[in-house]
Parts: sequence; structure tokens; C-alpha cells
Amino acid sequence: MTPSDQLTVPGQVMEAEIAEQPAVLARILRDGSAAIDAVAAVIAAREPRFVLLTARGTSDNAALYAKYLVEVLMGVPAGLTSPSTTTAYGARPDLRDVLVIAVSQSGGSPDIVESTAIARECGAITLAVTNNASSALASAAELHLAVLAGPELALPATKTYTAQLLTLYLLISQLADRRTPDVNRLPQLAEKVLADAQGMRELAMRYRFASHLVVTARGYAHATAREAALKIMETSYLSTHAFSGADLLHGPLVMVDTASPVIAIAPAGVGGSALAPVLERLQERGADLLVIGAPAYVVSGSVGFTLPTDVDETLSPILEILPLQRLAYEIAVTRGLDPDAPRALAKVTRTW
Amino acid sequence: MTPSDQLTVPGQVMEAEIAEQPAVLARILRDGSAAIDAVAAVIAAREPRFVLLTARGTSDNAALYAKYLVEVLMGVPAGLTSPSTTTAYGARPDLRDVLVIAVSQSGGSPDIVESTAIARECGAITLAVTNNASSALASAAELHLAVLAGPELALPATKTYTAQLLTLYLLISQLADRRTPDVNRLPQLAEKVLADAQGMRELAMRYRFASHLVVTARGYAHATAREAALKIMETSYLSTHAFSGADLLHGPLVMVDTASPVIAIAPAGVGGSALAPVLERLQERGADLLVIGAPAYVVSGSVGFTLPTDVDETLSPILEILPLQRLAYEIAVTRGLDPDAPRALAKVTRTW
Repeated sequence: MTPSDQLTVPGQVMEAEIAEQPAVLARILRDGSAAIDAVAAVIAAREPRFVLLTARGTSDNAALYAKYLVEVLMGVPAGLTSPSTTTAYGARPDLRDVLVIAVSQSGGSPDIVESTAIARECGAITLAVTNNASSALASAAELHLAVLAGPELALPATKTYTAQLLTLYLLISQLADRRTPDVNRLPQLAEKVLADAQGMRELAMRYRFASHLVVTARGYAHATAREAALKIMETSYLSTHAFSGADLLHGPLVMVDTASPVIAIAPAGVGGSALAPVLERLQERGADLLVIGAPAYVVSGSVGFTLPTDVDETLSPILEILPLQRLAYEIAVTRGLDPDAPRALAKVTRTW
Repeated sequence: MTPSDQLTVPGQVMEAEIAEQPAVLARILRDGSAAIDAVAAVIAAREPRFVLLTARGTSDNAALYAKYLVEVLMGVPAGLTSPSTTTAYGARPDLRDVLVIAVSQSGGSPDIVESTAIARECGAITLAVTNNASSALASAAELHLAVLAGPELALPATKTYTAQLLTLYLLISQLADRRTPDVNRLPQLAEKVLADAQGMRELAMRYRFASHLVVTARGYAHATAREAALKIMETSYLSTHAFSGADLLHGPLVMVDTASPVIAIAPAGVGGSALAPVLERLQERGADLLVIGAPAYVVSGSVGFTLPTDVDETLSPILEILPLQRLAYEIAVTRGLDPDAPRALAKVTRTW
């Protein structure tokens, strides 16, 4: 074995789970749609006026994506909850007409389970979205959707994240009666993006000695920026910030200089065009810029990764995260770490 | 002049504005209460079922504090908005029975102005909370509250932040009919905390060569953690993360090791007790820990700063941020930077 062969053994579980995603997306479209449509029918009949999303970690990034879908596609106001207001401070809000969606890979985080149970007592329509149909969260909620990702063994969540995104997309697009036919091409598009993402091995070298990183995006892609930052932190222990492009200009831009790498996600559509002025400001500051997105924006980066442009922007986050998962994996490997088992992490986080 | 005298000249505007805060709090209590109660009466008569908060940067941290107050004191569900859903994606949500509170120091950010105008068209009760009564935001909203902080000249917001917190507290505690009499002691408590915070000059040396920092808290103090992180980033260009204690355990804890400074805000009350298990985990990982809060938690830190314990937890964020503003100022000065005028920042951020 050469040294580089040895270095690729750590992370083999995460690598395999990243590669499984086209098959997981196909499984959800084939085996999950009927259950999703049935849950959507129950919810639609109750005519929710507001949607609250409850989650932590990677699942919270899936929840942020869902929040944009709810507001834009359904035209219903939505918010992300702070579980401690009910679990620690004892708040008992009036949740009639409110749909509470709890998203959790394991379905086992005690504070998410408890806050969902309280929401149900307070009159909410409660839906659990988990990868574990026999979990405490699935029982606590009135309704349940399994994301059908199969067992996830690496500590950094990858295939459960994209499975959550697609499940939430199918649910919300059904509720809004605004589903794009592009959704059926997702498995093949994901296959192509993952093939291209092999190139991330070389790109990861760029960040071998970086001390901190900034990831930015706007709109739907904001969830991608946050998930990419979390994935890089989890696997490489590298201090990584995610900012919406608008928030970045409100202060944190000062951190960016010629020694500061920035990753920007700029897909075709509103998210990319809204980020264009931010890309200009970053170029003015001499930032080292990796642009992941449509060709029109990729050219403005020091380096780039081109995403398919023939897909509705609502679905783009399901593709955008794939090269970034791969990048997180490769940065960890090039730093001599094992992405499968980051120090100090447990798969079910027990916070109260 | 000694070298240390010269070093204290940059940042004199920010330093003076930090010192002004007890007087600003007293002014709001004396001159602002009647207008706040009048606005509360208008809102109460409309019986909002849901509260949405719109803001960016420092004001967004004030909005997070308000979100906890709305949920815990009023028992009304609340969310932070993503302005781009309406301004960029064209969403027109049904906002009848919804109170939209837009918080902005300048009242001039175009996307906040536009999203507030759209919310009003969509049926919301709209309230602008600004430090500029003649701003575009004040005109766009149906209702307006001035935070009475006086002109803020340093780029990093300090007195406008605590003025926003107190104005929002007075409004929401009035709506909930649950105001603590402790509020009248805030100016004198702030005076004492600021006197103690002179000690931050020595503590700042600890972070002279830090490459990144983590700030953590739970509950109401979560807003303090986020604002402290933003203030340190803005003034010192130091990569600083804020995590709720619960989210920290869901991944980012891996970044913390013996070379990683952590600042924890653990006041008396639920926020501090909910953070106690997180403090234990941080100690296990050998983190360098500065604890700001009640004596029971301060002892668990490598270093500490004691806050008054004789104040209701709902008001604690107005005091917690004071030593952290001072710390941000002192870190910048010890690094040879000018906290008054961080590179690349403008007072009114023009994002669309």
C-alpha cells in the first residue's frame, strides 16, 4: 500500500453513504410518495395557518429549506422553533391551526421528542419526519413520515439529509399543488453531480492549512451553506461560518481578506442572482472564492464547480450539497482525520 | 504618552457609547414607556395569533431575544423571517392575525423596508422598532417605536442593541401583562456591571493570538451569545461562532480542544441550569472556558465574570452583553485595530 492508499481507508463508511444518495432519492420517489401524499391530504384538510419546524444539527438545515418552501410555495408564514421555550421555560403557546414539523434523523433527541409532545397537547397538527419509524419522536407526533434512507452508520449525516430534503419537498409541493416534474430526474442528476464531485479530492488540498472558512448563499441555497459549514466543522474541526449573503455584508465581511477562503453557492435562479452583488464585494476584498453553481457565477470564482442548470431552483439544494459533502470528506482525509468517527460526537445527541 | 495610552485612542467612540448605556436605559424607562404602552394597546386589540420578526445583523439578535419573550411570556408562537422569500421570491403569505415586528437601528436597509411593506399589504399588523423616527422603515410600517438611543457613531452597534432589547421587553411584557419590577433597577445594575467590566482589559490579553472562538448559551442568553460573537468578529476579525448549548453538542463540539477558547453565558435561572451539562462536556474536553454569569457557574470556568443574580432572567440579556461589548472592544485594541471603524463595514447595509 502506498501512503495515499492508507489515507483513503478512514471515511469509507461516509464515502459509501454519499454514493448511495441517487438510490435513496429513487427509493423515496418510488416507495415514499404514496405515504407522503396521504399525510399531505390529512394536513390539507385541517388548513394550517402557520408552520413551525423543530430540529437540531443537520436536520435543522433541512428544516430551513422547508421553511423557504412553505413560505414561497404555500404562501403560509413559517418559523424555526427554539425548543427550550417549551421544554425548559414551560411555555404553552396556543397552537391551534399550526402545523408543527419535527425533523430528526434518529427520532431520539429527548428535547425534540418532548417539544413535539407539548406542541400536540397545545393543539398543533404534529408531524415527525425521521429515518426511524420506531423512534420516540415518531410515536410522539400525530403523523409520521419515514425518509427511507436506510441505516446511516457514519457519524456525519449525508444520505439522511438529502432524504429529508426530498421528503419535505414532496410533502410541501403536494400541499401547495406546485410540484415540478424535474423531481423525477433527481436520481440521474444526483448521479452526474456525484461523478463530477470526484474532482473535490484535488480541490480539498487548497484547504489543507486553512484556519477558518466562510460559506455563503441566499434563498433556498442558504440551507446548503449552513449544512456545508456543519459538515466541514464536524469532519475536519475547521472553524467554518455560514452566512446568508445579506447577513455577511452586515458585519462578518470584515473577517474576509486575501487569506480567507470563501465558498459561495450560486445556483441558476433567484438565489444565484441575489448573491451576485455579494460575489462582487468578495472579489473586491480579494477573497479566495470557490463558486458552486451556474456557469455564469462559477466564472467569478478562483475555482469552481458547475451544477446542472436545467432543474427548478426549489430542488437545487438536493444537488448542491453533494459536492460539498464530498469536499468535507476530502478535507478531513487530507488532514489525516477519520470522517466516519469525529472525536466527541454521538449519533443521538441527548440534550434536554 | 506611553504606548498603552496611544493604544486607547482608537475605539474612543465605541467606548463612549458603551458607557452611555445606563443613561439610555433610564431614558427609555422615563420617556419611552408611554409610547410603548400605547402601541401595545393597539396591538392587543387586534389579538395577534402569531409573531414574525424581521431584522439583520445586531438587530436580528435583538429579534431572537424578542422571540423567546413572545413565546414564553405571551404564549404566542413566533418566528424569525427570511426576508428574501417575499423580496426575492415574490411570496405573498396570508398574514392576517400576524404581528410583524421589523427591528433595525438605521431603519434604512432596503430589504427590511420592502419586506415590511409587503407584510403590511399581506394583512399583517406591522411595527417598526428603529433608532431613526424619520427612516423609510418607520414610514413603511403601520406602527413605530423609537428606541431613543441617540445618534450612534461607532460602526459596531452597542447602545442601540440594549435599547432595542429594553424597548422590546417593555412592549412584550405589556402585551403579556407580565412585567417584572426589576426593570426599574436596570440602569443602576448596568452601571455596576460596566464598572466591573473594566477588568475585561486584562482578560482580552488571553485572546490576543486566538485563531477562533466559540460562544455558547441557552434560552434567553442565546441572543447574547450571538451578539457577542458578531461584536468580536466585527471589531477583531476573529472567527467566532455562537451556538446554543444544545446545538453545540450536535456536531460543532468537535472543534473544541485545549487550544480552543470558549465563552459561556450562564446566568441565574433556566438558561444557566440548562447550560450546566454543556459546561461539564466542555471541561471534559479541556476547553479554555470563560464563564459569564451566576457564581455557581463562574467557578467552573478557567476565568469568569460574575453578573448580578438579583434580576429576573428575562432582563438578564440586557446586562450580559455589557462585559462582552467591552471584551470585543479590548480584543480589537490589543490587536492594534480600531473598533470604531472596522474595515469594509458601512452603517447602513444596502442589501436587496
